[in-house]
This record gives sequence, structure tokens and C-alpha cells, in this order.
Amino acid sequence: MTNALSTEASRAHSLTLSQQATLAPMRDIAAGMGIDEELVEPYGRGAAKIDLATVEQLSARPRAKYVVVTAITPTPLGEGKTTTVIGLGQGLNRTGRSATIAIRQPSMGPTLGIKGGGAGGGRSQVVPMERLNLHLTGDIHAVTAAHNQLAAQIDNHLFRGSRSGLAPDRVTWRRALDVNDRALRTIVAGLGARTDGPTRQSGFDITAASEVMATLALTTSLQDLRERLGRIVVGYTRDGEPVTAERIGAAGAMTVLLREAIKPNLMQTMENTPALVHCGPFGNIATGNSSVVADLIGIHTGEFLVTEAGFAADMGAERFFNIKCRVSGLIPDAAVVVATVRALKAHSGRHRVIAGRPLPQGLLEENPDDVRAGADNLRAQLAIIRHHGVTPVVAINAFPNDHASEVAAIREIAAEEGVRCAASTHFADGGRGAEELAEAVAEAVTEPATSSFRLLYPDEAPLREKIDLIAREIYGADGVDFSATAAADIDGFQSAGYGRLPICVAKTHLSLSSDPALKGAPRGWRLPVREVRLSAGAGFVYPICGTMQTMPGLGSAPAAESIDIDSDGNTVGLF
Amino acid sequence: MTNALSTEASRAHSLTLSQQATLAPMRDIAAGMGIDEELVEPYGRGAAKIDLATVEQLSARPRAKYVVVTAITPTPLGEGKTTTVIGLGQGLNRTGRSATIAIRQPSMGPTLGIKGGGAGGGRSQVVPMERLNLHLTGDIHAVTAAHNQLAAQIDNHLFRGSRSGLAPDRVTWRRALDVNDRALRTIVAGLGARTDGPTRQSGFDITAASEVMATLALTTSLQDLRERLGRIVVGYTRDGEPVTAERIGAAGAMTVLLREAIKPNLMQTMENTPALVHCGPFGNIATGNSSVVADLIGIHTGEFLVTEAGFAADMGAERFFNIKCRVSGLIPDAAVVVATVRALKAHSGRHRVIAGRPLPQGLLEENPDDVRAGADNLRAQLAIIRHHGVTPVVAINAFPNDHASEVAAIREIAAEEGVRCAASTHFADGGRGAEELAEAVAEAVTEPATSSFRLLYPDEAPLREKIDLIAREIYGADGVDFSATAAADIDGFQSAGYGRLPICVAKTHLSLSSDPALKGAPRGWRLPVREVRLSAGAGFVYPICGTMQTMPGLGSAPAAESIDIDSDGNTVGLF
Repeated sequence: MTNALSTEASRAHSLTLSQQATLAPMRDIAAGMGIDEELVEPYGRGAAKIDLATVEQLSARPRAKYVVVTAITPTPLGEGKTTTVIGLGQGLNRTGRSATIAIRQPSMGPTLGIKGGGAGGGRSQVVPMERLNLHLTGDIHAVTAAHNQLAAQIDNHLFRGSRSGLAPDRVTWRRALDVNDRALRTIVAGLGARTDGPTRQSGFDITAASEVMATLALTTSLQDLRERLGRIVVGYTRDGEPVTAERIGAAGAMTVLLREAIKPNLMQTMENTPALVHCGPFGNIATGNSSVVADLIGIHTGEFLVTEAGFAADMGAERFFNIKCRVSGLIPDAAVVVATVRALKAHSGRHRVIAGRPLPQGLLEENPDDVRAGADNLRAQLAIIRHHGVTPVVAINAFPNDHASEVAAIREIAAEEGVRCAASTHFADGGRGAEELAEAVAEAVTEPATSSFRLLYPDEAPLREKIDLIAREIYGADGVDFSATAAADIDGFQSAGYGRLPICVAKTHLSLSSDPALKGAPRGWRLPVREVRLSAGAGFVYPICGTMQTMPGLGSAPAAESIDIDSDGNTVGLF
Repeated sequence: MTNALSTEASRAHSLTLSQQATLAPMRDIAAGMGIDEELVEPYGRGAAKIDLATVEQLSARPRAKYVVVTAITPTPLGEGKTTTVIGLGQGLNRTGRSATIAIRQPSMGPTLGIKGGGAGGGRSQVVPMERLNLHLTGDIHAVTAAHNQLAAQIDNHLFRGSRSGLAPDRVTWRRALDVNDRALRTIVAGLGARTDGPTRQSGFDITAASEVMATLALTTSLQDLRERLGRIVVGYTRDGEPVTAERIGAAGAMTVLLREAIKPNLMQTMENTPALVHCGPFGNIATGNSSVVADLIGIHTGEFLVTEAGFAADMGAERFFNIKCRVSGLIPDAAVVVATVRALKAHSGRHRVIAGRPLPQGLLEENPDDVRAGADNLRAQLAIIRHHGVTPVVAINAFPNDHASEVAAIREIAAEEGVRCAASTHFADGGRGAEELAEAVAEAVTEPATSSFRLLYPDEAPLREKIDLIAREIYGADGVDFSATAAADIDGFQSAGYGRLPICVAKTHLSLSSDPALKGAPRGWRLPVREVRLSAGAGFVYPICGTMQTMPGLGSAPAAESIDIDSDGNTVGLF
């Protein structure tokens, strides 16, 4: 994500740097990864699609070290996780190692909303950023199309008598669009004449929140995708029997609609480091990780594959380990935990940071004690990594105005934890600024401990037990409170044969707890599970803990209002 | 469109032929058109985008003969207009002339609905048909995104106090999706909490019916597109003042969202004839023609540019002449009017043809009198062409079971009208089957009469007069009946400065009249105009004559239910 600490001026500078970057031909980028030219389809300027046959073709090549980048609990300041992935990739290449990075495709709604895009920033960007942030090769749109094709077939199925017995008031499948549009959150559709029906209350989620997106991100092949799409549960009969997309007759067409989208996109960083860009499932209700197929390709394209897991380690990395790696079979060698001086100070609870408002003065003053007071969050995230048998590395994403004593405080905390730590100025300096981090990561992956990767729970553990384990051992809760609805949901899924699925807890990303106001590492709380939902296509069960917004709105001054072309036809105002 | 006369077996055969076609490299296709390699961006297998700088780059090259393909009034039998465009292009190339074709991008909703795609059929197809029919390079999705970005900003504008004065109940801008989904025709959005609002009744149109699509199809450059998008009227204030997309602050972002989509797509036919595929505006409420920019490029790429106008000459060709050519400044040299034996027999009114039902026996029996009885429709369409000073050519799209006496009857009718006529078997035989047609067209464009192209009306004619002219001189009506609403609409547009715009009459395509049941060339009727709408971005005013469905539904057995992948991952069931 664009670093929220950067000012308007530095954001505009990022766009300029991006537009000045010298792109290498995609065939050269692919050749450097050992991918046959015939498996690379150029897709407009600076982007290509990689055929899935590449997975098989590269399988005999050596396996790269697999490094996941995660972070401390996000603050409104932005920790710069994507820039760190990009910077680290560039740093590894600068220090004589070959690295590929894997990132998510940014959702267009937020890019045109308030947040900015997902291309990184400064001298650590994936380019061309206009293409990365808008449409790219159309994968998100293909997900939208497949999602809404199923929705249309569901309503047509109801309209024509519902031969499956699907009950109109028990349809759980909504519609999807990649736009920030609060007015679409809840709608009544099918108004008008009888032939314009059926009339039902429903709504739209942003496409990143679509189960189709989550499914595409976790699939391993086109045939696997076909099967997963068929398993999607769209609703229930009056008797509570699940009705699938297979039964609606939509899974085949959905697969055909996704046959280009399943191929990972190849782009490059400003320093020509290969970047696989693929899928962007929501981080709250889905995995928040880029695709399995991108990593299955990237793992054989060099010495390092650096991949990103959304939000903090309790969210993205836990899912990376227990859902994504469970599917891919890939074993991570190290995990980078990104922290910033200001974010740790914010985790002290002593400064109130509000998105879009000027920073409180106290946060800007030199005060290493505040850093230490916020360190519990960092310690908890490191513990989560080690709980999975993976070697952590702390990356201090350094900013020009950081005080040396505060950076030193983070180094001391890492040293106390026995964890390698490096400061990185990749935003300002590109790969050159990430050399210390690259060396730390290169050391970390050589540790024998990296071979001890373990999943948090086995497939066969009951759903309730899996949720309890995550709550206690990852979030630090005292236990879980299941509502009556949630308990019934779990019993239903367990008896319907979904008990072996892993868990993707839908909770706030703004706290280790389920209360976004609690900073640091909260103790003495219990995880409330309101209801439990099924993502049978993606292959996980997701307990709902708190209010999950699946369709963002636009702010009072949407980014879109500033985006335009100039008199030469260049894009301006896009970050 | 896929020829509706073809059986399931021949449709499956079309898919097989398409998948067996040998594609030439896109750079070779482009080189043959004289386009610099640097202006060609490959976009996946068998498709490329052409940079708009090509218009300028080619401007010194000779101008091709400009041939538009139109038809008699459509019947449920399908006349094979797209296959004729493709076949004629191939036929011209086979007979030693260089030709480029220009067609619309098919709308995905109907492709997955009932109609099938728009790739042509048999041995006259644009390939790869899966790419043409699904997503292609994402242009339709980009239109969807731009359309819905404006919609989201409109509701956000209302939510935040409507500083423009836009009245919530006078918003005319709806939302758009490329799917057949009747349940989205009329919705109430913005239900739920106050922050999920505003609550308004609205709905979705299929993206082909979006004003953004109509605008993209008529624009001449990126800067022109920016201005047109800004002019889009999204609704009115309480005082009836129009509120534009510019005022909402969305036009810049919409332009950036469309900056790839404005570039025409280059594909090829099965015989490697270059095919420009670009835009697909609805034929009823918009122009039903492919883009101006595609033709501005195609006109300098060889000896012939064959372009298609949707529906019959009273619809697509009239708009081609009076809207598209008015914008592009290009002058057509000939117009091919496609007819079939069966369709003319259907126009006799003696046979009742219902889509999806077996053909009536009488239609299949040899009866040249029926052909002559239906000839008035053909004569009327030829008259429309000549009214614009363009030389018509009758193309008989011949089928294996046509009786010779019936084909001869069409030739006699054409001879009576003094019009060249050729039978073409391009569906079965490809370009070889279109050689007679190619020769007839090549002769027609050499006529001195081809230089006498004239628009039906000047810009400065009042809107009411323009509508009256189209009704009388094109449709053969006795006059126009404006409702009170329509009269007020016209006065409003005239006084708001939209009086110089051309007219795009929204009426049924199934009759020369506004009554779809009237076949042949109806006389003694008046055109009822219920209301008049404005497409300020595209730049036309459209009177509504009858019920226009702008969001199709799915049938009882949608095509999507048969579309799938086979065990080798190949697409099956897509036509």
C-alpha cells in the first residue's frame, strides 16, 4: 500500500519516479526467471501472463528460499509492507542474489477511494503503476463477471421454479463490483414487473471480498478451480440442505470466465526485479494473500521468493501458514515483520492517531520510551511467527525524520527477543537502502530452525477446537464465546462434512484482539464469535467476530476527484 | 452474430474450426497493415491493442474504400451480417485485394445467455473466438468500471449534501454490468443504515447500453473522450438544470479508467484477414456500430475497410451515416445489404417464425413467390442507402438448403432495383465462397455515384425536424406523434444547447416501423415518441419509441449451463 506517512508531495514524487522507470522487456524478465518464452504472453505495456504449465516446467529447478513479509498491527500511519517486499526484493538482487517478489493485485475501489493503490512507493515500486492499480490484465473484472454470472443464474433458477429447492430467503450469494459504493451494500432487487423478479433483499460486496476471489487465490490448477467453484454454497433449501454452484449449473461457465485470470501476471519493480502480481482477496474475511499458483511458479525462479501476507502476523501470516501453505505445500524459511518507529509509538496507547488528521505533536518528538511501551505488539507478532517454527526478522521501515534513539530502541527490543533486525530506507533509496535487510534475511534462511515449520492445527481437529487454538495461541485471548447462532453454524458445517476445512477468522486487523481500540498486545479478553460462515469453494470456514464491512464507501474527497489526464494525455493524481 | 439457422451440430463444428485455425503472429498482421511495431501492444494470445498515435502515423497513406455492411430487417432466423463482414474481408483478400474488417466486441451477457457470441461462424470467424467473446482485452469491463465509478460518486455526492443541487429523485444515471440479469433491472439501493445511503430507486443496464460505451465508440482521441465524459448529464436539479459528470468530479478518473480501452483491438479472421474489434454499443438506444477510432485507423491500412452497422439499414446504417460518419468525417463508398432466402420469405408475413422453435414447414418448401412477397423490406433498405448517396450491393447469404429458384428471385429483385447482387457461401467455404461478393463490391466502389454521400440532415436543423425526417424518409412513416413529455423534453434540450446533436431513434429493430409485428415495409403508420433522452457524452439525442429493454434476462436453458472445460482444460459449449 502507498505509505500513508508520505506527504502529498512525496506521493506525487512517487508517480513521477514510477513514470521515469526504465522497463526491461517482459521476455528478458521472464528469461531471467528461467521461464520459456512460449509460456509468457505479453499483455500490454509492462505486463505479461504466465501459463500454468510453467509450474510443471520449472519443477526440476532448485527451490528458492521462501520469505513472507508481514507486520505489526496496522495503524493509520501505514507501515509500508508492500514497499518493504519490493525493497527487499531489490535489495536481494543488488547484493548478488536472485529474487522474485509476489504481491496482490490492488483493488480498484480503494485506489479510486482514499487509500491509494498497491504499487509501493518512492524508489520501491512495481511499474507501470497505472497498470498495476487500474485493471491490470483484467483478473479482478473476470472475478466480478464470474461472481455475477452465478448470481444471475441463481435468480434465474428461482424465477423458473427453483428445481433445487433453493429457498429465496436463504440465498447467501450476493453480487460483486470493484468499486467503493456504500449505496450497494443493501439493495432490494427484482422490483418492477413479475418478469423482472424475483424480488429479494440482497447487496453487493467489493470484488476483493468475493468468494470467487478467495477461491482463485487458493486454487492450484484449472481443473482444481473447476471443482472448487462447483463446491461453492450459494444458499440453502427450506430444510437447510446446501445448494451449490454446481447444482445451479454455473460452475463450468465461471471456470471458462476465469481461464485467463488464473494465470499469474508478471511485472517488474523499478529496479527490474521480477514481480508476480496475482489475486487480491480481502484480508478481513479471506486470506489477504496473493495466489498459490503465483508462489508455485515463483518458488522455482531464483534464490529467493519474497511474498506478502496482508495486515499483521495474527491476520495475514497466520492465514499464510495455516491456509495458503496448507494448500500449496510450500514451506516458509523466514518471515519479515515490518515495524516503524511511529507505529510502535502509536501502539503505546499514548498518542491518538486518526486517519486523515495531522499527526499529534507528541508522536513526532524524540521519545524512545514510547517505542518501548508499544513493543508488546511487535513481541506478540514475533511469537506468532515462532509458534509456526519460522525464523522472524524485524524490518524497521525507516523514515527521514525518525530519531536515532528510537530506531535503536527497536533494535534493542529485537535483540532482547533474539531476532535479527535491520533498518531499511528502501522508500527513499530503493534496493540500495534495503541491503542491510537483505543480508539479515539471507542469514535467517540458513538457520536450521527454518526447517521446523509446523501448522497450528491438523485438518482433523474439530472446527471449534481450531477456532479456540487461534484465539488463545495467536490472539492471546482467554477463550472464545460462541453465540447460539455460531454454535449452530459450526454444528451444521461439521455434520455437513466441512469439518476438515481450516479457519479464517474475520476480525478487525487494527488490534490483536477483536476490539479495534485495543492497541499493543491486549490480555484478559475473550473472542466473541457472532456467527460462522462457509467459503466452500476457497476451502475455509470463517467465524465472524465484530462488524466486517465488505463494501467500502467513498470519503468526502475521493481520490477519484483528483485523478485526470494532463494536456499531454499523461495520468495525474493517481497514487 | 452466430448464424441462428445453424444447428447445434454446425455450431459445435464452428467452435472446432475456430480452435483449429492457424493464427499469424500479431506483429505480422500489423505489419501487413503498415502499422509500426512500436504502436502494437500484444495483449495475450491472438490479440493486440493499437496505439491511437497510429491515426496520425498512417494519415499520409492512401485511403481505403470504405464499405459498410448492413442488412434487411432482422428475423429470428439470423441473417449472418457478422459472418458476411468476415467472409467479405476474406473474399477481398483472396481475390488479390488487401482488406481490413472492423466489428463490434460482443457483449458477454448475451453470449452466456442465449444468443451466442459475435465471432461469426463456420469458416468465417474471428479467432480466437473464446477471447473475442469473453473479456477480450477488458474494454467492456473498463466501461463498466468507469460507468459505476460515476454512479458511486453521484451517490456519494448526494450523501454529502449535493452541493451541485442534484435532486435525488432526478438522477438519470443508472449502474451497468455486462450480464443478463433481469433482477437488476429495477432495484432500491442505499437501504440499511443512514451511512449506507442514500436510499433511491435505480437499476442496472447491460454495459452495452451504457452511455460510456456509446461515448467511447464515438470519440476521436483521449482528450476528446475527456471532454465528452465531462459533458455526460447524470440528472437534474429541482429547477431542471442539468448536472454533469464534470460537476460530480468523475470525468477525469473515468478517462483514466478508459485509457487502455480507447485503443482498438487487433485480431484476425481464420484466413488471417486483419480484424479491428472495438466497442459494442447497443443497437436500439445507441449507434450499434463499432468505434470511430478503429475506422480512423483501418481506413489507411489497405485497399478496403469493411465495417459493420448493427441491425438493418434503417437502424445501424442510418446511424452509421448520420452519427458515426458525421463524427469521423469518413465517407462510405458502398453498402452491402445482407439478405437470406428464408428471411425474405419470413418478411412476406406468410410464415410465423418464433425464436427457439422449429421452423414452419412452409418456410422450408420451394416457393420463390414468398421471396418476392417479402422483397419490399429489401427494397426499402436499399432505398435508405441510396437516399444517403451511397451505392448498395445485395449480398445473399446462401445456405446449403436454399432452393435455386428462390436465390434467383432475390437476384431478380436486385436487378429490378438496378443494384449489384452476389450470393455468398462464406459460412461453409470461407473467403473462397465470398469471391463473387468481393467482385461485386470492388465494382460498386468504383462508381462515380459513390462520391455523392450526403447526411440526411444538417446539424442546425431543429431536433423535432430531424426526428420527423428520419421517421418519414427512412422508416416510411406518415409522421411523428410526440407525447406531451416528449415535446417538453425536446424543448428543454433545444433551449439547453443540445439542439445541434444528431438523433438516434430508440425503436424496435424487428420492423421498419415502431411495431415489431409489422414485417415487410409497413405503410400508413405514425411514429409515436413517448419521451426523448439525452446522451450528451456520446453526442446524440434519442427519442424513445416503444419499450426498450436495456437489461436482458436469462432463458430457461441459458447458454452458460452448457459452457465448461473438458478434461484437457479446453473450452466447450461456447458459440
